Amino acid sequence: MPSVPLSPRDRSDLRLLSWGAYAPLAELTGEADHRSIVDEMRLGGGQLWPFPIAPALSDDVASALSGASSVDLLGPDGELLGTVTDPEVYRTEPATDVKSLFGTDDPAHPGVAAVLEAGPWRLGGTAQVDADLSLAAPFDRHPSTPAAVKAAIAERGWQRVVFFQTRNPIHRAHEYLTKCALETVDGLVIHPLVGETKEGDVPADVRLRCYEVLLESYYPPDRAMLALFAAPMRYAGPREAVLHALVRANFGATHFIVGRDHAGVGNYYGTYEAQDLLLSLGQEALGVVPVPFEHSFYCNACGAVASAKTCPHDQSEHLHLSGTRQREMLSAGELPPPELTRPEVAIILQEAYA
Amino acid sequence: MPSVPLSPRDRSDLRLLSWGAYAPLAELTGEADHRSIVDEMRLGGGQLWPFPIAPALSDDVASALSGASSVDLLGPDGELLGTVTDPEVYRTEPATDVKSLFGTDDPAHPGVAAVLEAGPWRLGGTAQVDADLSLAAPFDRHPSTPAAVKAAIAERGWQRVVFFQTRNPIHRAHEYLTKCALETVDGLVIHPLVGETKEGDVPADVRLRCYEVLLESYYPPDRAMLALFAAPMRYAGPREAVLHALVRANFGATHFIVGRDHAGVGNYYGTYEAQDLLLSLGQEALGVVPVPFEHSFYCNACGAVASAKTCPHDQSEHLHLSGTRQREMLSAGELPPPELTRPEVAIILQEAYA
Repeated sequence: MPSVPLSPRDRSDLRLLSWGAYAPLAELTGEADHRSIVDEMRLGGGQLWPFPIAPALSDDVASALSGASSVDLLGPDGELLGTVTDPEVYRTEPATDVKSLFGTDDPAHPGVAAVLEAGPWRLGGTAQVDADLSLAAPFDRHPSTPAAVKAAIAERGWQRVVFFQTRNPIHRAHEYLTKCALETVDGLVIHPLVGETKEGDVPADVRLRCYEVLLESYYPPDRAMLALFAAPMRYAGPREAVLHALVRANFGATHFIVGRDHAGVGNYYGTYEAQDLLLSLGQEALGVVPVPFEHSFYCNACGAVASAKTCPHDQSEHLHLSGTRQREMLSAGELPPPELTRPEVAIILQEAYA
Repeated sequence: MPSVPLSPRDRSDLRLLSWGAYAPLAELTGEADHRSIVDEMRLGGGQLWPFPIAPALSDDVASALSGASSVDLLGPDGELLGTVTDPEVYRTEPATDVKSLFGTDDPAHPGVAAVLEAGPWRLGGTAQVDADLSLAAPFDRHPSTPAAVKAAIAERGWQRVVFFQTRNPIHRAHEYLTKCALETVDGLVIHPLVGETKEGDVPADVRLRCYEVLLESYYPPDRAMLALFAAPMRYAGPREAVLHALVRANFGATHFIVGRDHAGVGNYYGTYEAQDLLLSLGQEALGVVPVPFEHSFYCNACGAVASAKTCPHDQSEHLHLSGTRQREMLSAGELPPPELTRPEVAIILQEAYA
């Protein structure tokens, strides 16, 4: 039987698809859905869905699959993951698709680069996964499948649950907005993305320990929990915000925090583009209530974390350290002020940067 | 023409009715609506509405009105306010009505006491108000009619607007929850009740200066404004929470903050009764999204205001002063800690208590 080696990113997507995390998508995207998703952000059947989910094929593999009635899916290390029983090999147009998917074809954009690098060939069809795709240590300490996350929510008796997506360590500013959101619902799921990210992002295992210590020290266990979102990062801004919101309903979310320049990178997206898109789609289409937040900061005059919406004071009152300056401090063994980063979190970052 | 002298509370209700603040109610409640409101919390036509709005008549006035085709309404000082052109004089059952309206017939309850004191007779009909019922100084500094509040909101371009009802000065704990709510919408209207309150509540003119200085010092003027809600306080807990939420839509609210034991007094209502009722009625019935909040406090370990939902620390970390202790401090010329009350507000309360 012919076989297809999957990239780490494609394996991550296969994992989430097989877990039901990408519902309403149930199969690897075929050509018709591909075009409809790229052009309309919808499946052929009309349901909102932002990204094709289909493994990339090299030219060689694509021709080798010609006429195959079944295809093995292999992991990056050659391990057998499962089988596609009705394979559809088709050619896409990466160079133009990226303009719709990412709003740019700049190869410096990490999401664009990943699509261009994957080449034109894709594999659609019904994927039957036989391997155990559970996350390995240390990520097995927390629920990551939709079923496990929903069970953990049900156990806590939460009806209204807000999810927080992040690919960064949580500093005071983001702690503040998670808590603002939590105040008006029953529970909070800190749901960091732990799939593939770009070079320069803080590694997921370091972040994991930051989240763990933050939750232990600063959140009530009956109101907040950590769960993991194993998707790869696409950095596609508004369109990825749609993915992030939409799939959270599969994990039990009723509310979803959407930040400024959500899932953005560089200066490709407008500050409020993702928020505006989610608010215009609304709860009906997304299955969750989008909860937009501004950039927040510690203000000495307020004596609190605040945002431009809630603080009237001059910027000179605002405590601000650039990411670069914070990394310098941490590398040099200094702790940033506790108004910016909880000391328990800073110590973990310090060790990682040392 | 026979005339009816109105109590200050009844005049407040007439003012709001004439301003359109009590829509869908357009007329003084007649007997059929009275029964339906008391028994079902709905107008005879089925619309959600929690309290009869009809001036009380003494026995003497009630008999003098017999057969009148038109009735003058007089203010507490004898001034002519307007006319009821189709008067309906009817007898109610205060002793049993209060059980439905307030969940108690305890005459120690200030809202129950007001209804019992008003006696059984009420005047329904179409009220034509001729007098200028605008609020007098110092309350004329801020918008108070639905039209004026909506115009002020439109001027600021806010689409999503959360309203905060209060009958107390705003301490840090309530500032926190107004700001939490503001973070996820466009604007905040601090909308204190300035109609009749019970003995022992901080007078509205003192509170007004507290709100003004707080807004000037701690809220951005393009995101928060002060407007006045001239209704009398009923202390009816969940049922009054329905009134408070419902009528805010007439002032331009899209969201409404509902606290623990909202509009409660003493121990008559369950802590979450008002929140549960508003959440179960929902945006559809209320015309606003209810935004529930917990009791909040300053926590030394959090270094922030928080609630039981967002703070895991021991109560020994929580800064707490009883209302009595705070009043003692203020009377003695001491300022409570700034984590509890902004100094600008504390100074005004200090002067008032001196």
